[in-house]
Amino acid sequence: MSVEEVAALGRAVRSASTVLSHASTAMRNRLLRNVAASLRANEDHILAINREEVSRAGATGLSPVLLDRLTFSPKRYRQMITGVKEVIALPDPVGEVLEKVKRPGGLFIEKIRVPLGAVGIIYEARPNVTVDAAALCLKAGNAVLLRGGSEAVATNRALVALLRDAVVGAGLPPDCVSFIDSTDRADVLAMIQQAESLDVVIPRGGKELISFIRANALVPVIAHGDGNCHVFVDASADLAMAEAIVINAKTQRPSVCNAAEKLLVHKRLATKFVPRIVRRLRDAGVEVLGDDQTRALVPDVVPAADTDWTTEYLAMVIAVKIVDDLGAAIAHINTYGSHHSDAIVTRTARNADKFLREVDSAAVYVNASTRFTDGFEFGLGAEIGISTQKLHARGPMGLRELTSYKWVVRGKGNLRG
Amino acid sequence: MSVEEVAALGRAVRSASTVLSHASTAMRNRLLRNVAASLRANEDHILAINREEVSRAGATGLSPVLLDRLTFSPKRYRQMITGVKEVIALPDPVGEVLEKVKRPGGLFIEKIRVPLGAVGIIYEARPNVTVDAAALCLKAGNAVLLRGGSEAVATNRALVALLRDAVVGAGLPPDCVSFIDSTDRADVLAMIQQAESLDVVIPRGGKELISFIRANALVPVIAHGDGNCHVFVDASADLAMAEAIVINAKTQRPSVCNAAEKLLVHKRLATKFVPRIVRRLRDAGVEVLGDDQTRALVPDVVPAADTDWTTEYLAMVIAVKIVDDLGAAIAHINTYGSHHSDAIVTRTARNADKFLREVDSAAVYVNASTRFTDGFEFGLGAEIGISTQKLHARGPMGLRELTSYKWVVRGKGNLRG
Repeated sequence: MSVEEVAALGRAVRSASTVLSHASTAMRNRLLRNVAASLRANEDHILAINREEVSRAGATGLSPVLLDRLTFSPKRYRQMITGVKEVIALPDPVGEVLEKVKRPGGLFIEKIRVPLGAVGIIYEARPNVTVDAAALCLKAGNAVLLRGGSEAVATNRALVALLRDAVVGAGLPPDCVSFIDSTDRADVLAMIQQAESLDVVIPRGGKELISFIRANALVPVIAHGDGNCHVFVDASADLAMAEAIVINAKTQRPSVCNAAEKLLVHKRLATKFVPRIVRRLRDAGVEVLGDDQTRALVPDVVPAADTDWTTEYLAMVIAVKIVDDLGAAIAHINTYGSHHSDAIVTRTARNADKFLREVDSAAVYVNASTRFTDGFEFGLGAEIGISTQKLHARGPMGLRELTSYKWVVRGKGNLRG
Repeated sequence: MSVEEVAALGRAVRSASTVLSHASTAMRNRLLRNVAASLRANEDHILAINREEVSRAGATGLSPVLLDRLTFSPKRYRQMITGVKEVIALPDPVGEVLEKVKRPGGLFIEKIRVPLGAVGIIYEARPNVTVDAAALCLKAGNAVLLRGGSEAVATNRALVALLRDAVVGAGLPPDCVSFIDSTDRADVLAMIQQAESLDVVIPRGGKELISFIRANALVPVIAHGDGNCHVFVDASADLAMAEAIVINAKTQRPSVCNAAEKLLVHKRLATKFVPRIVRRLRDAGVEVLGDDQTRALVPDVVPAADTDWTTEYLAMVIAVKIVDDLGAAIAHINTYGSHHSDAIVTRTARNADKFLREVDSAAVYVNASTRFTDGFEFGLGAEIGISTQKLHARGPMGLRELTSYKWVVRGKGNLRG
């Protein structure tokens, strides 16, 4: 596509957003019911298109991991429909009165939640994101411009056609769901520069995509950085609890951002705990790296390099470090961590409070696994992503994080003077 | 300065922020009392430095407007001290519990307001901004990196020295207030790319500065765009009220962003209202431009060009347009406006509601002047600026808008899965 074509798509989405942004809750839910019904009715059609796309991608030598991500099994397809129904059931964040005040001069001021407007979503292979992300945006009253992975372009195109029909069926402009139908990276660049039409861009994907977008966007970005998460086992920790939390945080799903990548152990506990947890981790299939002090206790642990302390493995690997005290643990986490999710295991309330207060991360835990950082687990009902930045949204992002607000002011001829 | 020196300043501010971010309310207020006392004690010293700087700037031919902005009168200096005292008296936003929930599995989750961290402020000539902005940032627990206008660098340098002493006097690291002591625009560029150390950059200044920053920043930006504000006089408006609101919104302080720049009049009212308001505006010294319909009623009105509808005059100029109905007024405002502050004057409740709902601006008014868009007028107690973007903060930004939040999670050994 040309830059001008992308800009025209941006303007179309913005224009649709001005209608959608004040559509009623009932209207937006009807739209989503149309989406669910249409997905159900067209399962065979979509799955056939997806099978063809997967087979073409397989022939070009796409890696098995990416092929798997691209593939719609009937189960995945139905989970996607269930996801839409869950979004319908969520309370509508739009219209919520966040603050209200009567000012001395008589002005009545309300701060009211409104949709963000026009949201760009950039994502990689999984085609279900097309529907998941669109459903959340639409529920929150936002028009959406989608740009999916190039491998999934045929499947995404077919899904977007269904979504647009559903939008029209609800009496709303089709451009509420718009799609950059191309596999050219230059179109991503053009998209993230449409500051006149898009209110925000949310990239979902690997590090390379995120860095590219951060470096080139003119539209504000809400991005998901690394998840280099820590568990710190304090001197007073219950060792059985510490062991269970470390194993859960590391191994329950090692490929996701809230899995633990580092284990810090208080030196007073090291002799007792480190050999034991290294054994348990290895039994669970985890490769263990460690600092010199760790290796003094378990000599066959692989030495950790300096770069390990900042690395997000997303794999069955963990690096262990023995620290002098709570302060050293906090300093290490704030220096080398990614401000995502970090946990302390302790029986000392004062230490728990200090950790929770001083660790500068989106989610801080005492005596629980870092794996809980998730929109569903936190009770948000759904999740469009996890933010590791501090502006606008931090941690799991649900429907509310897809909104802004406006100040509504009512007077009786009030003048400033 | 070299890019590396700016980066080192960024790291110093970030490091100081990790201490300040969990300083108690009492400690931050003591710091601000130190600031106020030190400013009082050093008035002669600072005013002397400022006089010298103003006289040097005068000799190099700085414009009278900029010279005036640069000048500290004793009155302005004392207002700045009063401002610091007002900030001390404001409630502390940090630590506020925004949400809390006990999850089915027993996790206790709180969403707690925390400082943003390290905030960059980029501003132009007025040296009082050095103190105003630093006081707000410090009160909200943020370390601040300041970059003022090059004309005021000597005055700003002296103010920053006082601020740093006050910080140290409160037992906090001096780098809580840091300063880019240079007049080189390249340092602004280096500053807005310190995404590793700064959490946000807030530019305060003219269009050119803002566009430069939006185009080049890697750090997230909260910016103040144009204020192309409208008053729409609906068919049912009380004409005396409409006249008073238009005159107030346009003339009470025409150089500021919440002053009205456009007047839209419902066609049913035009014959009666337009000649009358044009006369009143001219009597008040306002130059009136208009569309063809306006000129049909008042032939000596200057024709408005297409570009007028998007222009922020910041001067005693207004452009008048006659519109067919409420829908046309809303469409015009959403298309040509700047999403800042827009008002309707009407006696029809349904029209008021439609305007408030459909006009996509930070502040929307019924029967009141747009001039009220201001942190003090809205009851925020202070203002670091006005945001015209939708992300993070919209409209007047006070202490809360200088904060983020974190998720604090307490368990009893909770595991996922």
